[in-house]
Amino acid sequence: MTDSKKTFTYTLVVSCPDKVGIVAAVSRFVADRGGSLTESNHHTDVEQGWFFMRNVISANSLTVTLQEFREQFEPLAIENEMSWSLRDNSELQRVVLMASHASHCLADILHRWKSGDMACQIPCVISNHENLRSMVEWHGIPFHYVPVPKEDKVEAFARIAEIIERHRAQTIVLARYMQIVPPDLCRDYAGRLINIHHSFLPSFVGANPYLRAYERGVKLIGATCHYVTEDLDEGPIIEQDVIRVSHSCDKDDMVRLGRDVEQAVLSRGLRFHLEDRVIVRGNRTVVFNS
Amino acid sequence: MTDSKKTFTYTLVVSCPDKVGIVAAVSRFVADRGGSLTESNHHTDVEQGWFFMRNVISANSLTVTLQEFREQFEPLAIENEMSWSLRDNSELQRVVLMASHASHCLADILHRWKSGDMACQIPCVISNHENLRSMVEWHGIPFHYVPVPKEDKVEAFARIAEIIERHRAQTIVLARYMQIVPPDLCRDYAGRLINIHHSFLPSFVGANPYLRAYERGVKLIGATCHYVTEDLDEGPIIEQDVIRVSHSCDKDDMVRLGRDVEQAVLSRGLRFHLEDRVIVRGNRTVVFNS
Amino acid sequence: MTDSKKTFTYTLVVSCPDKVGIVAAVSRFVADRGGSLTESNHHTDVEQGWFFMRNVISANSLTVTLQEFREQFEPLAIENEMSWSLRDNSELQRVVLMASHASHCLADILHRWKSGDMACQIPCVISNHENLRSMVEWHGIPFHYVPVPKEDKVEAFARIAEIIERHRAQTIVLARYMQIVPPDLCRDYAGRLINIHHSFLPSFVGANPYLRAYERGVKLIGATCHYVTEDLDEGPIIEQDVIRVSHSCDKDDMVRLGRDVEQAVLSRGLRFHLEDRVIVRGNRTVVFNS
Amino acid sequence: MTDSKKTFTYTLVVSCPDKVGIVAAVSRFVADRGGSLTESNHHTDVEQGWFFMRNVISANSLTVTLQEFREQFEPLAIENEMSWSLRDNSELQRVVLMASHASHCLADILHRWKSGDMACQIPCVISNHENLRSMVEWHGIPFHYVPVPKEDKVEAFARIAEIIERHRAQTIVLARYMQIVPPDLCRDYAGRLINIHHSFLPSFVGANPYLRAYERGVKLIGATCHYVTEDLDEGPIIEQDVIRVSHSCDKDDMVRLGRDVEQAVLSRGLRFHLEDRVIVRGNRTVVFNS
Repeated sequence: MTDSKKTFTYTLVVSCPDKVGIVAAVSRFVADRGGSLTESNHHTDVEQGWFFMRNVISANSLTVTLQEFREQFEPLAIENEMSWSLRDNSELQRVVLMASHASHCLADILHRWKSGDMACQIPCVISNHENLRSMVEWHGIPFHYVPVPKEDKVEAFARIAEIIERHRAQTIVLARYMQIVPPDLCRDYAGRLINIHHSFLPSFVGANPYLRAYERGVKLIGATCHYVTEDLDEGPIIEQDVIRVSHSCDKDDMVRLGRDVEQAVLSRGLRFHLEDRVIVRGNRTVVFNS
Repeated sequence: MTDSKKTFTYTLVVSCPDKVGIVAAVSRFVADRGGSLTESNHHTDVEQGWFFMRNVISANSLTVTLQEFREQFEPLAIENEMSWSLRDNSELQRVVLMASHASHCLADILHRWKSGDMACQIPCVISNHENLRSMVEWHGIPFHYVPVPKEDKVEAFARIAEIIERHRAQTIVLARYMQIVPPDLCRDYAGRLINIHHSFLPSFVGANPYLRAYERGVKLIGATCHYVTEDLDEGPIIEQDVIRVSHSCDKDDMVRLGRDVEQAVLSRGLRFHLEDRVIVRGNRTVVFNS
Repeated sequence: MTDSKKTFTYTLVVSCPDKVGIVAAVSRFVADRGGSLTESNHHTDVEQGWFFMRNVISANSLTVTLQEFREQFEPLAIENEMSWSLRDNSELQRVVLMASHASHCLADILHRWKSGDMACQIPCVISNHENLRSMVEWHGIPFHYVPVPKEDKVEAFARIAEIIERHRAQTIVLARYMQIVPPDLCRDYAGRLINIHHSFLPSFVGANPYLRAYERGVKLIGATCHYVTEDLDEGPIIEQDVIRVSHSCDKDDMVRLGRDVEQAVLSRGLRFHLEDRVIVRGNRTVVFNS
Repeated sequence: MTDSKKTFTYTLVVSCPDKVGIVAAVSRFVADRGGSLTESNHHTDVEQGWFFMRNVISANSLTVTLQEFREQFEPLAIENEMSWSLRDNSELQRVVLMASHASHCLADILHRWKSGDMACQIPCVISNHENLRSMVEWHGIPFHYVPVPKEDKVEAFARIAEIIERHRAQTIVLARYMQIVPPDLCRDYAGRLINIHHSFLPSFVGANPYLRAYERGVKLIGATCHYVTEDLDEGPIIEQDVIRVSHSCDKDDMVRLGRDVEQAVLSRGLRFHLEDRVIVRGNRTVVFNS
């Protein structure tokens, strides 16, 4: 499933109106340039008439450069009204992490990253609290403390936008960042701004999901990794999971058990995103994770 | 976990305000009458100061009859403000099943019952469709066809109430019975009227949960077994479970995959109920299932 | 995931040595004959250099007949050393079920089949016990009682082979059939003879897996659906699953809980098989189930 | 489930031959001294005639000291042939962690510990590699590097035993420590030496479980937390879990996915152990985890 370990691969992602011959055209294009497919997934949404494809191409045997591939693919893409991307997997994405006071999601991502198990660059971490600075800096990553006072969030987010831009973030991860981010950030990073919500959406949108789960008496609690849109907790879902709870769990137990689900779901979702496995269409996602 | 196989057991269920010495008092009461506990669960809701207990008592060595046990226990119960019940597990509960057109939940319960794996009596099945008659009657169970026309639901439910009463139902199971049952039935059978809802509540209350799950793009779908109250899909939850879905599942796939979860969750929930493992308090349940 | 509901589809399954251009060649072949792909999965086993592909082709728009498709595809298959099959999904496979005394797996398959949820024909059920005759015949399926006496298994299996042949079985399912089938049946139905073993293989090969699971004190029990080979419980695994158990489960509880896993795993495995989602290579399987 | 947050509690664990009146006697003893039970679990192994009990006692209202409780309980324990322990939960256990090269289990435990989510002391970490020193020391925990050369394991383990003794370890955790520990350590720390094995035991005992799982073609991989005995991977199991894999997972993917299960299972198992939820009898465990 991980491409990262296979050096010199490109990932080609395509979505377009479905029609006869699309797979043939794309795979012929790749084969004619000497590329072999080490991983290939397709999906046709029959109802909507839409086609989705992800190909991992072994670049070693390719007879063209990345730039040439792009230029030569463009006519095919235009002809078939494709949305498409081609990524050289040796160029790691720049991912800015944003956290608040809770450490578990951040610690999990940082540990995977340091172990070589999450293929990305992390140019910096931004937080509205100071308490995680030491952990972040131990990993050799710059830590930016940007408090977000209730009375002046606009300025705080202006600073944050400036930091994000300076570090040339390609993806932003809200690793239990407990602030609502402004609409323009949502728009600028549409499909690249990832949040973990501590409930099984669409249950318990908004604040205090564990308390509300406790009060409703549910027998499973969950977490949801999704792209952030301007509508709170309504963006396209990337990944979800749940864990069983019982009457013997009080609210604190739910919070504790939920942490494990949150960090697992966020890490899986982020991995899918970084490996270009996620394609958004409308408010739903195609996730090629096998 | 199943008591049914152990002949001559009583199940004593108690809930009351928590105080020091409750466990001692109850277990001393049982021991003084020669009863040994083959299964015993307690739970203290510390926040609410409430105590819950379920004991399975081996009746073979008891020196008192069921009736004597009840009479002698009464003062202890009053003193401690207990809600309590004592059941002779050799007397199987009378469970009326109600179904509509879909067969899977009904078939599952009937098969378990016929295999001796669901310890209850099933005096009859009531349905607003005729299509399941043959399956039910093959099991040797009377089938009552009661259509529920939109224009005259009152009379239909009067007939249903009459059938339920005639068969002296102790528990009613809505095995994908797609009609909203009237408030008086909910009240008369409070804590004994069990429904399976085809979503992971509180997500997708009401109609068409799979369609709405599909449209929201969730990555897990679920089912919820709960006691019915007058508030649609808001009653105390007994059991829930989920199954993973992906972008490759269309709405029909979700319906198909969901059926397996529905029948599993309903059968588990019904078993817990029949074995007196479920105690309702407010809108939450204690479920002693291990 | 189910193809069965989409009338007029063909399923093309291919495995062959991996080389550049395979996907292009096959998809071009299909496209040139007007076929659109409603579902398509590939897998490359990079280590072994082997390629696997499953395509569901919408046949309505095809410009060739099934027979013509086969004839025209043959040269491509030979050139690429393909193992391949092409099935018209409107022709349901003939599946003979074999059972013993336990009813749960058989009842589950029969219910799915009767509900239109398991796309196959079931020409007969064979059992070495009489107790399930009534259930089978209620479904309108012939029931063959073939006792398997210890002292003369050869003759019994000769009768069974005759019944299987007479009903022109394409697939055989051992639905908790507790006899070891003879080697020649394993060979004749290699890759088409499906068993459910009541443990999480390779744990607890052979007899009494639940007892041994109990004695080992495992915290999860499972079931395994696999193709039968001459080596007991060693054939290629199609599907597995587990369920949690605790110290409060005695051996009978494990048997009871295990039944649910067995029937679920067998039904999933059989569905994957019937939909041509399973490709065997060596002792491992590729299962395109999403 | 967590007791740690409730200050001033004692945990009383009892196992003994089952007989009428045990629960009454113990709960009466506690009640007579003013103790209320915030959590109580019993289990009777009917087949073996053995009784197991765990009580968490709110100590605030107790009229006796811990020492007095112990002295006064002793006669009751002797009379009933009890194995028993009473722990003051404010006295955190001293847990020595042993690791090798892999960081994930160690990092997970250290993070939980630092977050206040794993109630124990960690006096030191011992490893046969240097690479995790910096991570451990950042947590403020001494790191002991003890290489274990093939030709002189005896001396290495003598040093390790000395370190363990010096730090007065009450529990030892092998957090993917890839060396076989000597029999005398197994005996000295019987029931207090915890290992995580990277397979779903009893499948794949010994070396290279993921490789063997891959070769067998299983559809789920797992991990097992168990007490170490002199028989490799044969000790009493505390906790297990699994994760789904598919044909698209190569060996490296299995190792990666397995890591998440390993650390989750080890952390849960260690928590159960630290909270005195695990009682060993023979080669099986009772785990009161709800």
